[in-house]
Amino acid sequence: MSDDVRKILEKVQAGELSVDEALLAVKKEPFADLGYAKVDLHRKTRNGAAEVIYGAGKTAEQITGILDTLRAAGEKTILVTRISPETARIIGEEHPLTYHEIPRLGIVGELPRKDGCGTIVVAAAGTSDMPVAEEAALTAEAYGNEVIRLYDVGVAGLHRLLSHLDEVMGANVIIAIAGMEGALASVIGGLADCPVIAVPTSVGYGASFGGLSALLSMLNSCASGVSVVNIDNGFGAGFLASRINHMGTKR
Amino acid sequence: MSDDVRKILEKVQAGELSVDEALLAVKKEPFADLGYAKVDLHRKTRNGAAEVIYGAGKTAEQITGILDTLRAAGEKTILVTRISPETARIIGEEHPLTYHEIPRLGIVGELPRKDGCGTIVVAAAGTSDMPVAEEAALTAEAYGNEVIRLYDVGVAGLHRLLSHLDEVMGANVIIAIAGMEGALASVIGGLADCPVIAVPTSVGYGASFGGLSALLSMLNSCASGVSVVNIDNGFGAGFLASRINHMGTKR
Amino acid sequence: MSDDVRKILEKVQAGELSVDEALLAVKKEPFADLGYAKVDLHRKTRNGAAEVIYGAGKTAEQITGILDTLRAAGEKTILVTRISPETARIIGEEHPLTYHEIPRLGIVGELPRKDGCGTIVVAAAGTSDMPVAEEAALTAEAYGNEVIRLYDVGVAGLHRLLSHLDEVMGANVIIAIAGMEGALASVIGGLADCPVIAVPTSVGYGASFGGLSALLSMLNSCASGVSVVNIDNGFGAGFLASRINHMGTKR
Amino acid sequence: MSDDVRKILEKVQAGELSVDEALLAVKKEPFADLGYAKVDLHRKTRNGAAEVIYGAGKTAEQITGILDTLRAAGEKTILVTRISPETARIIGEEHPLTYHEIPRLGIVGELPRKDGCGTIVVAAAGTSDMPVAEEAALTAEAYGNEVIRLYDVGVAGLHRLLSHLDEVMGANVIIAIAGMEGALASVIGGLADCPVIAVPTSVGYGASFGGLSALLSMLNSCASGVSVVNIDNGFGAGFLASRINHMGTKR
Amino acid sequence: MSDDVRKILEKVQAGELSVDEALLAVKKEPFADLGYAKVDLHRKTRNGAAEVIYGAGKTAEQITGILDTLRAAGEKTILVTRISPETARIIGEEHPLTYHEIPRLGIVGELPRKDGCGTIVVAAAGTSDMPVAEEAALTAEAYGNEVIRLYDVGVAGLHRLLSHLDEVMGANVIIAIAGMEGALASVIGGLADCPVIAVPTSVGYGASFGGLSALLSMLNSCASGVSVVNIDNGFGAGFLASRINHMGTKR
Amino acid sequence: MSDDVRKILEKVQAGELSVDEALLAVKKEPFADLGYAKVDLHRKTRNGAAEVIYGAGKTAEQITGILDTLRAAGEKTILVTRISPETARIIGEEHPLTYHEIPRLGIVGELPRKDGCGTIVVAAAGTSDMPVAEEAALTAEAYGNEVIRLYDVGVAGLHRLLSHLDEVMGANVIIAIAGMEGALASVIGGLADCPVIAVPTSVGYGASFGGLSALLSMLNSCASGVSVVNIDNGFGAGFLASRINHMGTKR
Amino acid sequence: MSDDVRKILEKVQAGELSVDEALLAVKKEPFADLGYAKVDLHRKTRNGAAEVIYGAGKTAEQITGILDTLRAAGEKTILVTRISPETARIIGEEHPLTYHEIPRLGIVGELPRKDGCGTIVVAAAGTSDMPVAEEAALTAEAYGNEVIRLYDVGVAGLHRLLSHLDEVMGANVIIAIAGMEGALASVIGGLADCPVIAVPTSVGYGASFGGLSALLSMLNSCASGVSVVNIDNGFGAGFLASRINHMGTKR
Amino acid sequence: MSDDVRKILEKVQAGELSVDEALLAVKKEPFADLGYAKVDLHRKTRNGAAEVIYGAGKTAEQITGILDTLRAAGEKTILVTRISPETARIIGEEHPLTYHEIPRLGIVGELPRKDGCGTIVVAAAGTSDMPVAEEAALTAEAYGNEVIRLYDVGVAGLHRLLSHLDEVMGANVIIAIAGMEGALASVIGGLADCPVIAVPTSVGYGASFGGLSALLSMLNSCASGVSVVNIDNGFGAGFLASRINHMGTKR
Repeated sequence: MSDDVRKILEKVQAGELSVDEALLAVKKEPFADLGYAKVDLHRKTRNGAAEVIYGAGKTAEQITGILDTLRAAGEKTILVTRISPETARIIGEEHPLTYHEIPRLGIVGELPRKDGCGTIVVAAAGTSDMPVAEEAALTAEAYGNEVIRLYDVGVAGLHRLLSHLDEVMGANVIIAIAGMEGALASVIGGLADCPVIAVPTSVGYGASFGGLSALLSMLNSCASGVSVVNIDNGFGAGFLASRINHMGTKR
Repeated sequence: MSDDVRKILEKVQAGELSVDEALLAVKKEPFADLGYAKVDLHRKTRNGAAEVIYGAGKTAEQITGILDTLRAAGEKTILVTRISPETARIIGEEHPLTYHEIPRLGIVGELPRKDGCGTIVVAAAGTSDMPVAEEAALTAEAYGNEVIRLYDVGVAGLHRLLSHLDEVMGANVIIAIAGMEGALASVIGGLADCPVIAVPTSVGYGASFGGLSALLSMLNSCASGVSVVNIDNGFGAGFLASRINHMGTKR
Repeated sequence: MSDDVRKILEKVQAGELSVDEALLAVKKEPFADLGYAKVDLHRKTRNGAAEVIYGAGKTAEQITGILDTLRAAGEKTILVTRISPETARIIGEEHPLTYHEIPRLGIVGELPRKDGCGTIVVAAAGTSDMPVAEEAALTAEAYGNEVIRLYDVGVAGLHRLLSHLDEVMGANVIIAIAGMEGALASVIGGLADCPVIAVPTSVGYGASFGGLSALLSMLNSCASGVSVVNIDNGFGAGFLASRINHMGTKR
Repeated sequence: MSDDVRKILEKVQAGELSVDEALLAVKKEPFADLGYAKVDLHRKTRNGAAEVIYGAGKTAEQITGILDTLRAAGEKTILVTRISPETARIIGEEHPLTYHEIPRLGIVGELPRKDGCGTIVVAAAGTSDMPVAEEAALTAEAYGNEVIRLYDVGVAGLHRLLSHLDEVMGANVIIAIAGMEGALASVIGGLADCPVIAVPTSVGYGASFGGLSALLSMLNSCASGVSVVNIDNGFGAGFLASRINHMGTKR
Repeated sequence: MSDDVRKILEKVQAGELSVDEALLAVKKEPFADLGYAKVDLHRKTRNGAAEVIYGAGKTAEQITGILDTLRAAGEKTILVTRISPETARIIGEEHPLTYHEIPRLGIVGELPRKDGCGTIVVAAAGTSDMPVAEEAALTAEAYGNEVIRLYDVGVAGLHRLLSHLDEVMGANVIIAIAGMEGALASVIGGLADCPVIAVPTSVGYGASFGGLSALLSMLNSCASGVSVVNIDNGFGAGFLASRINHMGTKR
Repeated sequence: MSDDVRKILEKVQAGELSVDEALLAVKKEPFADLGYAKVDLHRKTRNGAAEVIYGAGKTAEQITGILDTLRAAGEKTILVTRISPETARIIGEEHPLTYHEIPRLGIVGELPRKDGCGTIVVAAAGTSDMPVAEEAALTAEAYGNEVIRLYDVGVAGLHRLLSHLDEVMGANVIIAIAGMEGALASVIGGLADCPVIAVPTSVGYGASFGGLSALLSMLNSCASGVSVVNIDNGFGAGFLASRINHMGTKR
Repeated sequence: MSDDVRKILEKVQAGELSVDEALLAVKKEPFADLGYAKVDLHRKTRNGAAEVIYGAGKTAEQITGILDTLRAAGEKTILVTRISPETARIIGEEHPLTYHEIPRLGIVGELPRKDGCGTIVVAAAGTSDMPVAEEAALTAEAYGNEVIRLYDVGVAGLHRLLSHLDEVMGANVIIAIAGMEGALASVIGGLADCPVIAVPTSVGYGASFGGLSALLSMLNSCASGVSVVNIDNGFGAGFLASRINHMGTKR
Repeated sequence: MSDDVRKILEKVQAGELSVDEALLAVKKEPFADLGYAKVDLHRKTRNGAAEVIYGAGKTAEQITGILDTLRAAGEKTILVTRISPETARIIGEEHPLTYHEIPRLGIVGELPRKDGCGTIVVAAAGTSDMPVAEEAALTAEAYGNEVIRLYDVGVAGLHRLLSHLDEVMGANVIIAIAGMEGALASVIGGLADCPVIAVPTSVGYGASFGGLSALLSMLNSCASGVSVVNIDNGFGAGFLASRINHMGTKR
C-alpha cells in the first residue's frame, strides 16, 4: 500500500494530481461494490494465485454475481466453498465449475501449475473427517501445491500412521485433521520436523461438544511446531499451508 | 448386606431378637461416629485390602483420630492422601507413617503382599504429571499389586513410549496419565488390549483450563477399552486398577 | 508387534529377506485400504472376539463394503452401531444382519458363546436411557458375556434399585447408565465391590446441557471403583466391561 | 406496602398532610443510610424473626456500625456471616457476639425460642461440607427452628443415610448439602415427602469446577420436591427452610 | 418404609412369615414392571394427591400402558406432561384426557378439590414464558391448589408487576418464571415474604444460552427466600409449590 | 411516574377522589390486557417516537391483536421484528405493513421525520451480518434518524473501512456489527470519538460458538467508548443509538 | 486524520515537502515511544478532556514516566486506574496525585469544570460494588460531569431504588452497577428513558462465576436502551457516559 | 527413523548383529533417563539449532541436571523458559545463563548466527503483553532469526500499527500477540501476505476469562493465513516462526 501512496504523492508533486484528486485516489476503493459485497480486485496480487468465495449464507445469484466480477478482472482459479449441489448446479450454468460433493466445494476455472517448494501432506484421523480434509486438500491444490492424502490414520491404530512415516517425514507442511480427541496433531507434531497445521473437526458426539474437545487438545499439544485453525476450517489450513509451502518461491 | 438382614430376620424368627431390637440392629451403624466423620469399619471386607483417608481439608488431629479408630479395628494398611509434610510429621508422631513427598501421600502400616493377577503399568506423559502418577502407583501397591512405572513418555516423542512396548503390551491394567492434550490415553488405548484407566491432570496452562482439555480428550478417545476418572484422581485410578487386577482372585 | 519385527529380523538374518524387502514388510499394512476406510484385519486377534463398525456418518454402501472385507477375512460377529432402519434394511440384503431398533444397532453373524468370567449388570436410571443401555448390553453379549438388565432403577425411587441388590452385589462388572443428575453411578459404586463403568446420557433438558450434568456428576463420584466413558457411549462401556469380564480367561 | 400508601392517602384526604408532604412520605426511607450501606429497619416485620449482615467484603468497623443501628432499632438476634476470627474479635468488643469457627459465622444477641412447625434436617454428604452445613443449621436455629444435623451421610455409603431414615422421613423440611457429584439431594428427594432444599458446595477438585458439578446435578434431580440455592449458600437454605417451617404459624 | 419393615418383622416374629418369605417381601416391588417402566403404585401415599407421567420420549402406547396400570390402581388424577397433540389424541381414545395445548400437558381424570392452605401465585415475565407458566399452574391445580396467574409482568415495565402487589404480598407460595435475564425472581423475592420458587426458561436468544443466563441470575438472587428448579421445569415448580402450600395440612 | 402520583394526591387533597378511588387509580393499569400480553399504552411518551412488537414466538393473530390496540391508541409507527414472510402477509391484510425480508422485520405505518441530532452509521463486517445490520438500521430510521450503511467493511480488508473514514469520523453514533472475531468494534472504537454500540452476531462456525467469540471480543475491546448489546440484537442497538442521537433534542 | 493527510498533500503540492518527507510525515508517530509504551499525545483532541493510564501491570516508575510525558504535553487531568496505595505514594512524590482508596484510583492534576449536558447517575446494587461504582463516578467527574451517586439500591429492596425515582428519571445518562444477578440494570432500564450503561461486577460467589452471571443477565436485559461493558469496567462506563453526556456540546 | 532401522537391518543381514541385539538396538533409547526426565539427545538433529527446557514445575536442581546432560551432549544454545530469578541464580552458578526478567527466560550458551530466510516481526498489542512477546522474540533469536519488535500497537490506536506498515509488509513471518479482544491478529492478517502466528495472552480482566476471549477471537479470524497457539505460548510461536523462516534453507 505504501507504494501506491508514494505514487500518488509523486503525482501530486509533479502537479499531475490536485490535492483533492489525490485525497480521492487514496480513498478510491480497490474493490467493486456489488451492494451485498465489496469484491476485492487486488487480493490476488496480495495473497497468492487464487481467489475464494465463502459460499455459506450466500445465494446462487450473489455468488454468480461475484464470479462475474472476479472473472472479468482476470481471475483464473476461484474456489467456492460450502455450497449445496443445487447451488453448484445453478452457478455451473454460467461458470465452468467443478463440484466436489464430499467437501461441498466448487472450483471455477483451471487449476494452476504446482509451483510450491515441497509436498503438503493432508492427514485425517477418520473417515468422517474427510469433508474437512478434502476442503483442505483441494484448497492447497487450487493454490498450486502437490498434495498427499493420508486418510483414516487416527492414533487408535498407530500402525496405520507409522506405515506412512516416509510421507510424514518428507512433507514440507502437514495438515493434521481430527475430531473427537484430536490426538493426531500431537503425534504427527512429535514425528515431523516441518510446520504442522492442526484442524479440529466437529466430528464426534457427547463430550466432543461440537469440536471443542479436539480444539483444546490441539491447542495444548505438547509437540512444538503445531498451530491451530478454527474447527472444520479446511480452507484456512489449506491456504496457510500453501503460503508456507511457497515461502522460498515468492521473494 | 442381604446376609446381615437374613441373619437378623432369622434371629427374630428364632425369638432371639424382638422386633424393636431387630429394627435397631438393621439401623445399627457399621461405622464409628467421630462427630466430624463416620468411620466405616466394614469397608475392608467390602472393598479390598486397605483403607484410605482423603486428607485434604482435614486437620492432623482429625486424621489421627480416624487412624486411631481404624487401626484399633485391625486395619493393617492405611493410605492418607493429599497431606502436607507438616501434617505428615504430626501424624507420624502417633502412627507408623511413611510419607511420599511428590504425591503428598502417607502410608500407615506395612504394604500387603502382591496378590494381583498381573502387573499394573502406570504411564505418565510428563515430569509434571508425577505427583498424580505416584499417587496412583503407590495406591496400587498399597492394595497389593505389582506396578511398573513409565514416566515422561508423552506422545510428542513417540519413540520414548514405543521403546517400552513390551511393558505396555504385557500389562494386565494400564493407568495412562497426562495433562495438556491428554493424547497418551488414546495412543496407549490403541496399542494395548487390556483395560486402560485414563487420568487427566491439571498440568498445563492457558487453554488447558485446569485439566479440562485433557479430560475431554480422554473422554473422546477413539480407542476402545479406555475409561476416565476425575482430573488428578490418582487414587481413584490406582484403586480401580487394583480391583480389576484382582478380578480372577477374589471370587 | 515386537513378535512380527522379530520374525522379520530373523528372516533377514537367515538371508530369506533382503533389507529392502524387510523394510517393506515392516510397513506392509495389516489393513485393507478401501479408500474411504482402512479396515483393520488383525484387530480381532488383538482386541477380542468381535469387530465393530461405527455406522454414524457412513453410507449403507460404505458399511456393506467394510462388511464384505471383514467377513471375507473370517470375522464371525460384527456389530454395526448407530444406523437407521433404512440403512439396516439395505445392509441386510447382502449380510445376515439382526437389527435392534431401540439402540439402532445391527449385529451381523451369530453371537459367540458366553465365555466371560461372571455376569455384567447393565443398570439404567430411566426409560429414556434404554437406547444407550441396549447398545451397552448387546455389545457385551456380542463379545461373549452374560448380561443382566436392570432398567428404570433411578435413585429417586431407591427401593427399585434396592429390590435388585442381589444382582448388583453379585455382578462381575456393572455398567451404570443415567442422564439428568447421573446419581445412579455413585449409589451403585457405593453398594458394589466390582468395577463400575458409568455412562452419562444426553437424556434430560435445560441444565442437563446435553449430558454435561451427568458426565460431571459421574466424574466426581465419591464412590471408589467408578470410571466414566463418553456421553451416550454404550458401545464403549459394553466393550470395556467385556474386556474386564474376560480378565481371568485370556492370559 | 399498600397499607402504608393507604394511610398516607387517608391523611391527605383528611387534610392532615399536604400533597408535598405526602410525596415525601412515600419516599421517606424505611432504612438508615450509613453511607456505605442502607440499613433496612423494617425488614424484621417483613421477613421473620432475625436480621442478617453478609460480612464478606465489609470491614469490622462497617459491620459494627450496622450492628449499632440494628440493635438501636430493637433487633434481638442478628447473624453476621462470613467473617474472620479477627473481625469477630473486634466486633465482639462492642456487641455480644458468639462466633462459630467452622462456618465463620457470628450471632449477636440471644437465640429466639423455637416456634417452627416441625424439625429441619440438615444433611451433609461429607466432613468438608460442614462449614456450609453449619451456616445453614445455625441460620435455621437463629430464625427459631429445631434442627437435626446428619453429617457425613454421602451416598457412597448408603447405609449411613439409611440408618437415619426416621429423621429423614419425619422432617418438615430437609436441607441436603453436598459437593462433588451432589447425588445426596436426589436420594433424599426420593425418600422424603417434604420440601428439600439442595445446597451444592464448592468441595471437590478437578471436574467439580468449584461446585458446578454438584449444582448441575441438583438442578437435574429426577426427584420431585427438590429446589436449589447458590453454591455454598448455607444461609439462604437455612433462611428458606425456616420460612417454609413457619408456614402454618405466621398467617 | 420403616413401618413396612416393622410389619414384616412382626409377622416373622409371629411366625406368620418364614425368613425367606420375609426377605422376599422386603424386596417385593411396590411397583408394576411394564418392561419399559417400573410404575410406582405407592407414590400417591408418599408424595401427594396426584400422579405424573413425564411424556417426553415415550410413545402413546407406552403412556397408555402406564395409564392403564395407574388407573387400575385407583389413581384419580394423572398428569401427562410434554406430549404432542397427536399423542394426546391417541391417549384420549382410551382415557378421559383433557389436553392443554400451550404447555402441551394432559390431565387424565378429575381435578381434586382445592385443599391447600393459601393461594399459589404463578408470575411469568413474558408472553413466551406461558408454556412453562401453564405447566406450573396446571400442575399446582392438579395437586389441589388455588392458583392466581400473573402473566407478562417482567421487570422492564415494573408498573405491571406493582399493579398486582396485593396478589404478590398475599400469596402463600410464589412461582416466578422468566427467561432472558430472569430478574423477576429477585424483584418478587424482595417484595414477598413467602417462599419463592424461581423457574428459568429457555426463552431468549444469543447470550441467553438456552436459559443459562436466567438460571445463573436466579441462583445469584440477592433476595432471600428464593430457590431454583431446572430450566423450563414448570412441573417441578408446581409440585414443590403444592407441597409447601399443604405444609400445615398434612401433618 | 411521580407526576402521576402527585396528580392523584392533589385530587385526593381536593376531595375529587376518595382514598379507595385513589388507591385504584395508582394501580390502574397503563396497559391493555389482551390475556396473552399486557400492551403498554403509555410507552410512547416514555420511550420515544415508535412502538415495537417482538414477533418471535407470537402468532399472526396475537400480533394483529396487539397492533389493533396500539393503533387504536394512536401509535403512528410500529415495528414488528422477527416475523416470517407468511406472518407478515397475514398481518398485512389488516394493517399497512411494509415487510423487509433480510431482517425479517415489518414496519406498520409511516416513518417519522428525521429529527435526530446527527447521523447514525451502521457498519457491518460481512455480508452475512446484513440481517442484524438491517434490523438496526431500519429501527434507527423508524425512530427518526438519518442512517448511513457501511456493509462488508470487516478488518481483514482494512482499506474497505478506511475508505469510509469520513463517514466514521463524522457520525454522531456508530453501530458496529460483526460475527466471528468481532474485531470491527475495537477498530472503529479506536478511530471514532462518538459512542460506539457493538452488536455481536451469531455469524460464523466452529469456535464462534453461536456468537460467543464476537461477544467476548467486543466486551474486552481495548477501545474506550464501546458498549455491547446481546448477540444479534439489531433492534436494541438501533433503539439505543436513536436515544443517544436525540440527546440534545428531547430535554 | 484526513485533515492531516490533506495538509501534508498540500505541502507536497506546494513543493514545501518532498515525496519522501511526506511519506515520513504520514508515518511520523503522533505518540512518544517510551520503549515500554507508546504514549498518545493527540488523544485529548480526539477523545475528550482527560487522559487515562491503566495502572494494572505497570510499575510506579513506568507510570511516572508516562505522566512526565503527558504533563509535558500539557495534559491537565490524568486518571491512573487500578494502582496500589504504595504505587500511588511513589507517583505522588513526583506528581500532584489525589488517591482514592476504594476504587484504587489516582487523579493527577485538577478536575475540569463540569461542562456536560445533564447529570450522570451512578447506581450500585450493593456495598461491595462500591469500588467499581467509584471508578465510574470519579472517571465521569474527571471528564467534566455532574455525578449523583445512588449506592446500595439493589432490587431485593425495591423501595430503596424507588425512593430515588426522581434522580433516576431526571438523569441524562445512568450507569447501573451490580454483581450477583445483575437485575438492577433491567429495572432501571425499565424506569428510565435515557441511555443506561450496565456494568456487571465480579461481586458474588458460587454460581456468580466471577461476574459471568451478572454479565449474561445484563446482556439479556428485556429493557430497551441498555448496553453493557466488561465486568468491573467502571472506567469504561464512566468514559462512555461522559461522551454521551457531552453529545450536544461538542459538535 | 527409517534410516536407523535400515542401518540396523543391514547389520543383521551382514551378520554383524544378532536378532536379539537388533531388537535391543531398535529399542535403545535415544535419550538419557534422569529418572525425573527422559532427556532427548537427538532432538537437535530433528528439530533445529537449539534445545529447550520448560522450567515451570521443575526445581533448579532438576534443570541443572538436564543442562549437564544436554551440554555434555554438545548442545550450544539451550533455552530455559518460565523460571524465577532465584532459580536462574542457582542455575547460573553452574552454567553460563543469561536471564531475561520480563519473560522469565534464561538462555544458556551463545546465540547462533542468524540464518533464517527473512525477518520475523513480533507485534504485541499492549505493554502488559510484553512477557509473552519477549518469550517469542528471544526464542526466535535463539533459533537463529532476525527479529523486529513492534510493541504497544493495539488496534484501539490504529495509527500506531499503520506507522509500522513497512515492517509488517516486509516480514517473512509475523507473530501477533494480544490479550483482551485479540483483534490485532485479524488486522495484521488482513494487511500482511505472510504466515501470521497468533498468540492470545491472559492479559485482561472480567470477560477476558484468562485469555479465552482473545483465543476465540483469533481462532475466528476472518483473515486468511492466521493460525493460533495456546494462550501465553510465546515459546511455541517463536519456535514455529523459526521453523517457517528456515523453510528454504534446511532442505
